[in-house]
Amino acid sequence: MDLLFTHALFLEGAGAPLRRDVSVGIRSGAVAFAGGEPPADFAPVRTIDCGGGLLMPGLVNAHTHSPLSLLRSRGEGLVLQDWLRQVVWPYEARHTWESCYWGALLNAAECIRSGVTCLCDMYIHSEAVAQALEEAGLRALVTPTVTDELLAAEPDRLETIARLADRYQGNPLIRVGIGPHAVYTCGGALLDASARLSADRGLPVHVHVSETEREQADCLAQHGCTPLSLLDRHGLVGPNTLMAHCVHLTEADIALARQRGATVVHCPRSNLKLGSGIAPAAAFLQAGIPVALGTDGSASNNNQDILEELRFAALLQKGVLRDPTAVSLDQAIAMATSAAGGAMGFPVGRLTPGAPADLILLRRDAPQWHPGFSPEAELVYAAPTGEVALTMVGGRILYENGRYATIDLERLCAALPRFAP
Amino acid sequence: MDLLFTHALFLEGAGAPLRRDVSVGIRSGAVAFAGGEPPADFAPVRTIDCGGGLLMPGLVNAHTHSPLSLLRSRGEGLVLQDWLRQVVWPYEARHTWESCYWGALLNAAECIRSGVTCLCDMYIHSEAVAQALEEAGLRALVTPTVTDELLAAEPDRLETIARLADRYQGNPLIRVGIGPHAVYTCGGALLDASARLSADRGLPVHVHVSETEREQADCLAQHGCTPLSLLDRHGLVGPNTLMAHCVHLTEADIALARQRGATVVHCPRSNLKLGSGIAPAAAFLQAGIPVALGTDGSASNNNQDILEELRFAALLQKGVLRDPTAVSLDQAIAMATSAAGGAMGFPVGRLTPGAPADLILLRRDAPQWHPGFSPEAELVYAAPTGEVALTMVGGRILYENGRYATIDLERLCAALPRFAP
Repeated sequence: MDLLFTHALFLEGAGAPLRRDVSVGIRSGAVAFAGGEPPADFAPVRTIDCGGGLLMPGLVNAHTHSPLSLLRSRGEGLVLQDWLRQVVWPYEARHTWESCYWGALLNAAECIRSGVTCLCDMYIHSEAVAQALEEAGLRALVTPTVTDELLAAEPDRLETIARLADRYQGNPLIRVGIGPHAVYTCGGALLDASARLSADRGLPVHVHVSETEREQADCLAQHGCTPLSLLDRHGLVGPNTLMAHCVHLTEADIALARQRGATVVHCPRSNLKLGSGIAPAAAFLQAGIPVALGTDGSASNNNQDILEELRFAALLQKGVLRDPTAVSLDQAIAMATSAAGGAMGFPVGRLTPGAPADLILLRRDAPQWHPGFSPEAELVYAAPTGEVALTMVGGRILYENGRYATIDLERLCAALPRFAP
Repeated sequence: MDLLFTHALFLEGAGAPLRRDVSVGIRSGAVAFAGGEPPADFAPVRTIDCGGGLLMPGLVNAHTHSPLSLLRSRGEGLVLQDWLRQVVWPYEARHTWESCYWGALLNAAECIRSGVTCLCDMYIHSEAVAQALEEAGLRALVTPTVTDELLAAEPDRLETIARLADRYQGNPLIRVGIGPHAVYTCGGALLDASARLSADRGLPVHVHVSETEREQADCLAQHGCTPLSLLDRHGLVGPNTLMAHCVHLTEADIALARQRGATVVHCPRSNLKLGSGIAPAAAFLQAGIPVALGTDGSASNNNQDILEELRFAALLQKGVLRDPTAVSLDQAIAMATSAAGGAMGFPVGRLTPGAPADLILLRRDAPQWHPGFSPEAELVYAAPTGEVALTMVGGRILYENGRYATIDLERLCAALPRFAP
């Protein structure tokens, strides 16, 4: 089933020159051509006129906890410890397969609508999360959380994760990784076991690193080294490692992360909202570290909007460094589209012929896109956020002009009260 | 012509309890009733079913330079002085009545679409700006810029401003103030003359204050006092003064501003983007100073979205102060709706019976509003930005479901290339 986009303002990927009035063909889930001549046998069953709208790679949310969408807007204005103790932990203790499935589906609906085509999830009941994301049609790396406490309650948790990884082996959209939560929730034995599982099965590693000052200070006091060095000692820092937050990395940490080829997942809004601080994202970029973006869970952000996260990321560094040239447009767009692909093991962020057709269409009718001197700048700094015109993953349209192809939003919202805290 | 909203999730104003399933009647440009019994003779010519959408006071953009929308996305990534010298100043030198009119109209289209019902503009060719805003149907305080340089080119500029103020005397939507640009562009004589004109005619004062470290340092070196003290010496700081930016106010400045009853216009995104820093907005709030929000001109931000500005304002203070309780939901909503009303002389931000019907409707269908535990938190932290369902000013619908009542967007966009730099 060939599909054709016409009259697109086409952005192949971060750093590529924008091309106007381009036709883009989709075949067998991949980009068949973008401009130039279509294959002789190209016969689109449908043609979508982009009308000058921006056709670009889908956005990537490289750090979230999908089912926490069920806790959006609960416990606003509490300090962190009260919020965790009074709201989050009691709720999480009651989570079931069903609540995690519906929470992940709500999250998926939001991702799809706001232009996220690929995400990296860390949570419990990951088999439910994976099923919801697969049904929704998203591309995802699902990394079940492991902590000493979870392992005590479920001693065969690592074997369960290995089986989940086996089940999704060869799946075109869903991959499974492992999510050792953080150095303050995982002891040395569990970090070692996680590293072994990752190495044995080639599973990406997804871990919280240096999110708060306290995490940093406690680790130094307890282990005599930073959280990143500790993870590295246990063999958990490499090219397929996604390090979420990294607010308080030291210069030595930055050098180590660079040397290992690990990816930072910058979560500026969550770090602001929880009072954790502002990560030195420009320094990571300057060191040559891949820097991706994450929203964190909707309990602490409170949405899954990577375009909004991108705006915060680009503006914050300029303000903090007092340097209006910090974070270029190309760097900003790369953070939101391509940067996490290497660590996640997905060829995302560049719509070259042969690449998976994970793309979004943003109409440019709104005044925010005018006069239109730099659509990249308008994307990063001006465009309305939270809703795109079309979202496609692997050649399949998941959302178009307000309508979902894979999710019954009304039924979904009707189910949510069952999972209220 | 009576008009009725039904099934609204109604927010009368910041701090008021949300009320569900409320009917709100509009008569003669004002709120006639909100809940409770309609007047016996209330006969709506039209009924709008809000379907549980949030009906709330319109947003207020208390610091902008409307015609700079014509320069959106020009000169991205330049340092401030290069950007001003290479892009902004050469362009502004060629501004005409016509370019300012069309630029202001583009800005108005964006405001209306993103839920801004009231704005405070500082620019040249203010008669063109006022005409565009009046035609668009917005509520606005228009404050013509004055600087020594402008006065040298146009010696009767203050008299022209006085005549413009006379012309709009009694206008229900447009007021005229005076905009002494800043202490580094206005000498003592001009500051004195501005203060006299303000006092004689009751004109609000709109001024840039302590936007950059350099402004602060230069003023201390040249005058031995801070910009705010200098303005105060010239009688320009009072209850009808809008002080834009205030990034580098000292503690003594904060005490002075509080004592004079002046209003801060916090512009967090512009301050970040230009590398000026982060204003201590939570300290202003704590001191009891009214804190409003401004986007600044679209040349430096790059949109007029107060909902987005609000999100930055609320999140930044939490992150910088490492305090998740900094800036409450009520404070955030007040910044975006009611805080500037006093200084501007407009009764905005509270939809009590008798108040002008300046309001917006946000549909809550998108997943970002679900599960829906706190619509205020969803408004501040989660809702899509950049487009509302309906915008009403003084009882007149300016925008509804993608259609403008007062602006021909297609014709407007077609006119823009004539004013390209």
